[in-house]
Amino acid sequence: MGKENFVEQIADIEADFPRWYTDVVLKTELVDYGPVKGTMVIRPYGYAVWENIQAELDSRFKATGHKNAYFPLLIPMSYFTKEAEHVEGFAPEVAVVTRAGGEELAEPLAIRPTSETIIGTMYSRWLQSWRDLPIKINQWCNVMRWEKTTRPFLRTSEFLWQEGHTAHATEEEAMAETMQMLGVYKEFAENVLAIPVICGRKTEKEKFAGAVATFGMEAMMKDGKSLQAGTSHYLGQNFSKSFEIRYLDKDGSQKYAYTSSWGVSTRLIGALIMAHGDSRGLVLPPKVAPVQAVIIPIAAKKGGVVEKCLEVKAELEKMSVRVEFDSSDASPGWKFNEWEMKGVPVRIEIGPRDIENGKAAIFRRDTLVKEEYPLGGIGETVLSLLSAIQKDMLEAARKRRDGRIVCADDLDGINDGVEKGNFVKAGWCGCRECEDKVKAVTAATARVFAEGETAEKCAVCGKKAEHVVIFARAY
Amino acid sequence: MGKENFVEQIADIEADFPRWYTDVVLKTELVDYGPVKGTMVIRPYGYAVWENIQAELDSRFKATGHKNAYFPLLIPMSYFTKEAEHVEGFAPEVAVVTRAGGEELAEPLAIRPTSETIIGTMYSRWLQSWRDLPIKINQWCNVMRWEKTTRPFLRTSEFLWQEGHTAHATEEEAMAETMQMLGVYKEFAENVLAIPVICGRKTEKEKFAGAVATFGMEAMMKDGKSLQAGTSHYLGQNFSKSFEIRYLDKDGSQKYAYTSSWGVSTRLIGALIMAHGDSRGLVLPPKVAPVQAVIIPIAAKKGGVVEKCLEVKAELEKMSVRVEFDSSDASPGWKFNEWEMKGVPVRIEIGPRDIENGKAAIFRRDTLVKEEYPLGGIGETVLSLLSAIQKDMLEAARKRRDGRIVCADDLDGINDGVEKGNFVKAGWCGCRECEDKVKAVTAATARVFAEGETAEKCAVCGKKAEHVVIFARAY
Repeated sequence: MGKENFVEQIADIEADFPRWYTDVVLKTELVDYGPVKGTMVIRPYGYAVWENIQAELDSRFKATGHKNAYFPLLIPMSYFTKEAEHVEGFAPEVAVVTRAGGEELAEPLAIRPTSETIIGTMYSRWLQSWRDLPIKINQWCNVMRWEKTTRPFLRTSEFLWQEGHTAHATEEEAMAETMQMLGVYKEFAENVLAIPVICGRKTEKEKFAGAVATFGMEAMMKDGKSLQAGTSHYLGQNFSKSFEIRYLDKDGSQKYAYTSSWGVSTRLIGALIMAHGDSRGLVLPPKVAPVQAVIIPIAAKKGGVVEKCLEVKAELEKMSVRVEFDSSDASPGWKFNEWEMKGVPVRIEIGPRDIENGKAAIFRRDTLVKEEYPLGGIGETVLSLLSAIQKDMLEAARKRRDGRIVCADDLDGINDGVEKGNFVKAGWCGCRECEDKVKAVTAATARVFAEGETAEKCAVCGKKAEHVVIFARAY
Repeated sequence: MGKENFVEQIADIEADFPRWYTDVVLKTELVDYGPVKGTMVIRPYGYAVWENIQAELDSRFKATGHKNAYFPLLIPMSYFTKEAEHVEGFAPEVAVVTRAGGEELAEPLAIRPTSETIIGTMYSRWLQSWRDLPIKINQWCNVMRWEKTTRPFLRTSEFLWQEGHTAHATEEEAMAETMQMLGVYKEFAENVLAIPVICGRKTEKEKFAGAVATFGMEAMMKDGKSLQAGTSHYLGQNFSKSFEIRYLDKDGSQKYAYTSSWGVSTRLIGALIMAHGDSRGLVLPPKVAPVQAVIIPIAAKKGGVVEKCLEVKAELEKMSVRVEFDSSDASPGWKFNEWEMKGVPVRIEIGPRDIENGKAAIFRRDTLVKEEYPLGGIGETVLSLLSAIQKDMLEAARKRRDGRIVCADDLDGINDGVEKGNFVKAGWCGCRECEDKVKAVTAATARVFAEGETAEKCAVCGKKAEHVVIFARAY
């Protein structure tokens, strides 16, 4: 089976990006559809990516003083009504348990779409004195939001995520936490996922239901659309007042805490696919790739080839490289395609002639370049290649993105820009009417404010601009 | 606040074991009650124990060739009816989603009580040829079983667990997998949790709903009752026939796979508490203790004390010891009690006189013995103490348990044995009637078969014994 034949299995990335995405996630066995509409099964290859993401994030959360905990899945429906904006935002998407243990429940229970309400309830119980602050807890869990249109990783009725929830004595501290975690996400996205992100505040329309302010990080996908890859919310005293999160301060008075929440989800896997993938399939950054290097024997039946492959494998394992030796019956060409589709950063080819010459051919998935390297010290070579790939992937993604950020002065300009697959910066007066108009005309939404930038006029109404907004079509 | 005063907060372990348990789990902040009846919040201290359990088990699962994945929470109700025994066992405990996204669902969805049915459905889709076997997947997730009587960690409507699900070409392979994972659990229970366990096959009555055979591991708690700490099920072709888990074999014919499943849960935290705890509270084995050593300054305001404590802390951290320095305002006595209650394996006391003498007092939580050790090389000292504690806790638990296993020839003997807090070995004819009678008269159940042991007569009916059974009252 030739390469062309094989790659035909995946739709052309230029011609049909959505179809390419679906083909890639299914054929690389990252994911499968669950039996219930809108659900997904995260298969071992996809889950291994998630485990790597978890490990990297979890160590960052702990290094910034957070501890993990676990709160119940089921939340009394009445909790949602305590914060007016929150219930409006989430009630329509909630899945509800009405029967359990063979009986109808007195009060229906929601499967958590997010946990501010139940965690707030527990914090109000735990928080007594100023000495108990700050409370900095994160949880890794599943959540459920019943969506009409779903796509694996990007929008599914159930997904996995982490949600951090903190409570502080002052506004300043809570805001500092909100911004710190946004910074943690950005550093992680860039250094681990190799995805450059634009961070900034969201408009009132786009903010989290119940937040005072939401800060998001937006990543550009290869089709020029934006994907919201993580959010950090400053909740002020909205939830502490609704859930009585109070404490006795040093001065003897009862005060409401200031809270924050922040989260990223399995959506990040979708971001990885669409930020780096190409016509051959996935391109995974080494830090999250389940397999970082694959060894493929050429003329495996010739004496010494398998032995040398196993020797190289052992050397790489000793250096903690996640390595596979593909000893299956398939042809080398078939294997090349298969592992390229799966996005493995480095492929090592070893055949009788290579052994004779003391060399191996190493193929880089990101650049598609194959070069010969000495077999001696191949472990070090692979390590330095992996580190170069990690860095180069970020730079390549940054270049791609930076070449696709344009400015516009009017609605036509915004439309033209997003139509061509760009992020578009434009002035905005701050009124909801103009924001809605952009959406209606261009199908783009306000992603984040371009922090620190200014414009003269609103691109929609021509009045004085209050902000520069980055508009894009979004996932 | 003196020690006596403080310990009064916990009920007397000898006088009221259940109350002692509840006091300990709440006051050490392992857990709290959730707002919905029967649910629990696993607080950071408890969750840290779970994280340590997960890390130890997960590396064992991977070393035996398993990969993690994630399957959906919601299972169509109709799936449960496909395996007759399975539906009978689980349907009464299921929580059901009937409404989602503002609409009534056409088919009600169960929150997974266990995932054989949905994983079986996916395996039937993935499994094509003999080349795809074995499939060896594990998932870490939440499950829900609506229970009438609940207690934190031991029995809650929602709990966290792992469930391994494998499919094999032959009966032998599936049975070997079942036994291998039982062995992994036993080694883990003994070497990590320091809990000796008795492993063996369960009776028909006690087996998993839908299994051909269930193997369990039973641990003795300090009140002499047994806790089922893990199970491994050989499912034969029951689920593969119900869910069409078939493959094309080498000989060109379609065959049903043989499957297994195995799991342990947050119940293990309950086992830890009740296997090791004492009148002062928790006693945690070093390998899962969130804090392995606590440093407490004596006369902290005297020059050099805090500095020395921080120096020792840094030394221990360098050796990867999980260490806390308690610099709070509370008195040393109060801190002693607090950290003893929390079960921290080693306490290091450092005061001006200790520094002068170049020594520190180290208290072992398991033996309650305090001894002086040189400050020089204290890191090595703590490491070797932690390793000794780990080993000694297992041996102590083994001695306690072995002293409480008795034999009985008749129903009175069984009753007398369990009444005194023993495991009781007795002959059993194999009939359900006699098994039920033991339960009715003694409140004890058949835990596992005593493998390889024989008896003359059934202790209930006097007929020929087919098995020796270990009877105990159980959690």
